Amino acid sequence: MSAPVPRTVRVEEAVLGHNRELAARLRSRFEERGTLVVNVLSSPGSGKTSLLERTLAELTPTLSCAVIAGDLATDNDARRLAGHGAPVVQIATADICHLDASMIERALPEVDSPTLQLLFIENVGNLVCPASYDLGEGMRAVLLSVTEGEDKPLKYPTLFKTADIAVVTKIDIAEPVGFDRATALANIRSIAPQARILEVSARTGEGLSAWFDELRGRVAALKRP
Amino acid sequence: MSAPVPRTVRVEEAVLGHNRELAARLRSRFEERGTLVVNVLSSPGSGKTSLLERTLAELTPTLSCAVIAGDLATDNDARRLAGHGAPVVQIATADICHLDASMIERALPEVDSPTLQLLFIENVGNLVCPASYDLGEGMRAVLLSVTEGEDKPLKYPTLFKTADIAVVTKIDIAEPVGFDRATALANIRSIAPQARILEVSARTGEGLSAWFDELRGRVAALKRP
Repeated sequence: MSAPVPRTVRVEEAVLGHNRELAARLRSRFEERGTLVVNVLSSPGSGKTSLLERTLAELTPTLSCAVIAGDLATDNDARRLAGHGAPVVQIATADICHLDASMIERALPEVDSPTLQLLFIENVGNLVCPASYDLGEGMRAVLLSVTEGEDKPLKYPTLFKTADIAVVTKIDIAEPVGFDRATALANIRSIAPQARILEVSARTGEGLSAWFDELRGRVAALKRP
Repeated sequence: MSAPVPRTVRVEEAVLGHNRELAARLRSRFEERGTLVVNVLSSPGSGKTSLLERTLAELTPTLSCAVIAGDLATDNDARRLAGHGAPVVQIATADICHLDASMIERALPEVDSPTLQLLFIENVGNLVCPASYDLGEGMRAVLLSVTEGEDKPLKYPTLFKTADIAVVTKIDIAEPVGFDRATALANIRSIAPQARILEVSARTGEGLSAWFDELRGRVAALKRP
């Protein structure tokens, strides 16, 4: 009997190679135009949409923003994110557990403009598959909520290793859920020493100013034509 | 440029067909022997391991139990589950986002015995990929914690549609996280009308007796040679 695991991996390599090429073309296009693309990744329910709601409310008055949101089904996220002055498009992936560069390329015309400064891509809620799919982004933000358990960076290292920013979310309920902050931060640092760690609550607003400043600083650093 | 999405699906169909055949053979073997196999599925951090810790403590005095735990990396879960009188084996899947039947077949000799009555398979924390991989189980338990958001059954329908039991976990923190119970239960019922819904807290023990009784009843209903 043949082992399905290596067979799957070989096939994925071909698909991933194709994806990497397309992502590189998208990245060049974004960089030429001075658009910061942020790939937002986490487990389901870690608070990606809540964080983006607050972020759009804060940034859209001064920055041109847009969102591409991915989910297997429903347009719940796009509906939550609409009404903040940024165009939003939802990608329904059916049973595909991640976004890929071709999906971004197809969705982009719905939200793109020559003056776009900040494009958020809210990936499918998943700590595994999205790690391997470059979307042409300039920054990866990986969220970890205080309710998920401190060992998640150790158990899902591939995704955390690719993070530019690790955002600990829902810190307003850290105490009732018994969150062990020191262990969680140590685990993030051991797997993702390259990542800046931020701690936020989208509900109370605590810690969000550092997140907003990080985004504003990165947008300001991009050369615009 | 070819579209990677349908290509991925076709490849998956071949892998899935192979998996289904092997799962059917495993299921026949378990049924002949009178072993109940429970595939435990959820998002990362929904409380699979905590629920299984309590379950082993309760059931191992009277039932012969074993556990196969799957994760991308670490043997954290196996270490947490050891010491309850049941053999436990960890499968490290590397970057594979789900267990498959061949992994179960290879791990099984580590925990199997002719008198085994109850085998728990703790799947990789993921609401997408594990849905499609039959492991030869007799029962699927899908967990949803009160911290994840009430819309998760709508956004990850494939997995919830396959559930025999939907277990709402962490109900002791429902109030501080603002859990909307009525909406969550309505969403589970709309996607998974076949599933019995249980509400539990592994921390306080609330609701666990119904879960234990469900397992005991199913084990008792199996014919043993």
